Amino acid sequence: MNEIIKSIYERKSVRAYEDRSIPEEMKQVILEAAAQAPTAGCQQLYTILDITDQKVKEALVYTCDHQPFIAKAPLVLIFCADCKKWYDAFIEAGSEPRKPDVGDLMLAVSDAVIAAQNAVVAAESFGIGSCYIGDIIENYEEQRRLLQLPEYVFPAAMLVFGWPTKQQMQRPKPQRVDQKYIVHENTYRSMDGNELRDMFAGHCNNRSFEDWMMAFCKRKYNSDFSKEMSRSVHKYLEQYAEGEE
Amino acid sequence: MNEIIKSIYERKSVRAYEDRSIPEEMKQVILEAAAQAPTAGCQQLYTILDITDQKVKEALVYTCDHQPFIAKAPLVLIFCADCKKWYDAFIEAGSEPRKPDVGDLMLAVSDAVIAAQNAVVAAESFGIGSCYIGDIIENYEEQRRLLQLPEYVFPAAMLVFGWPTKQQMQRPKPQRVDQKYIVHENTYRSMDGNELRDMFAGHCNNRSFEDWMMAFCKRKYNSDFSKEMSRSVHKYLEQYAEGEE
Repeated sequence: MNEIIKSIYERKSVRAYEDRSIPEEMKQVILEAAAQAPTAGCQQLYTILDITDQKVKEALVYTCDHQPFIAKAPLVLIFCADCKKWYDAFIEAGSEPRKPDVGDLMLAVSDAVIAAQNAVVAAESFGIGSCYIGDIIENYEEQRRLLQLPEYVFPAAMLVFGWPTKQQMQRPKPQRVDQKYIVHENTYRSMDGNELRDMFAGHCNNRSFEDWMMAFCKRKYNSDFSKEMSRSVHKYLEQYAEGEE
Repeated sequence: MNEIIKSIYERKSVRAYEDRSIPEEMKQVILEAAAQAPTAGCQQLYTILDITDQKVKEALVYTCDHQPFIAKAPLVLIFCADCKKWYDAFIEAGSEPRKPDVGDLMLAVSDAVIAAQNAVVAAESFGIGSCYIGDIIENYEEQRRLLQLPEYVFPAAMLVFGWPTKQQMQRPKPQRVDQKYIVHENTYRSMDGNELRDMFAGHCNNRSFEDWMMAFCKRKYNSDFSKEMSRSVHKYLEQYAEGEE
């Protein structure tokens, strides 16, 4: 196994950090790794917000579902899918671009997330831990005000970075389900009840499938933060042009 | 510079392949690298389609905007954002989950793209080239029929892999814009005409900003494939629950 594969296999999310900053030159390499990621037509359809203001970090604790470790992270990056800068440049050049639409958004979200994952892999190569904060897509109004996001800019991914504490380094990595459930050949294969039970058996620990799944559904899926996520994304989607059909 | 950073910096898209297959054990490591990627709540909100049928590859040439090199790639993977499998499992367990909504979709798209980028980095570590095919989100009807995608399954990212030809290895990597335009501190900073012109100066080669931008806008942004992308994404979005507002 080469060093790159080993690093990818071992990487796990880190949510508690030593009280130690990230050297500026390492931060610059992490950002450059993001920029060197694959990008559609070399357009770099993203803008990265580097959150250096402690007050903004503290605000993000609350706008991202009350996660205090965000404020303790020495490096916080928000990867915005940016459909604005090219649109503005087209207009500046005298073109008549159509308004950004949901296809542009999805392409820009891919670009932003691809760049984010390169930042994760680069940080890991230095021993710097990271964690995605999915909640950045919640709270449309507050988040946009806090980060001054204009129309056509969507916060696709947020990452916090820091040096892992000993406890975090020793924490076992959560196990993924068997590949046979994840990789389907040629076409999508819907799974029946038995296969779903087999797939998730490893998640349920010593509880029954029913107990574990019902608790998870309540806590994660039917939860307030999860509903808020969709309300907020609907608001973002309203910015984009209506389909022509 | 460590080996991981070097690999990330040097990686560029590869669209022409030697006539040589990818050994099964390397393919399995690439797939495992995807599965070991960060994932929201360890849910692995994606399903990977491994396209082994040459006829399906050839169909994808046409459903993905006529790109013949897709059919010549020894490995073709489609990373689907999968909001179906957990929904089905919740129902199997006797829960009453709400219908998948656009927040779930965005979270699953992130999960799928994060996994895809790990596959890119893993492949690169073996010297295997790769290329994202953004057009997989076009042609809703044909793509869903071809890949038998049910409701709540969205083809978020497609990757083709292969051993680069000599010509591809020697091709220079397209240059990214200066980091100062990509990384903004704390809040989003809208750029004025002068800054947009400076940012894109490197893209324009020997042409004026106006000439280059207008041609690019016409070819890439106001183009038929680009409009098709948004039409198709609107169709996918219709599957998801309406916002509650």
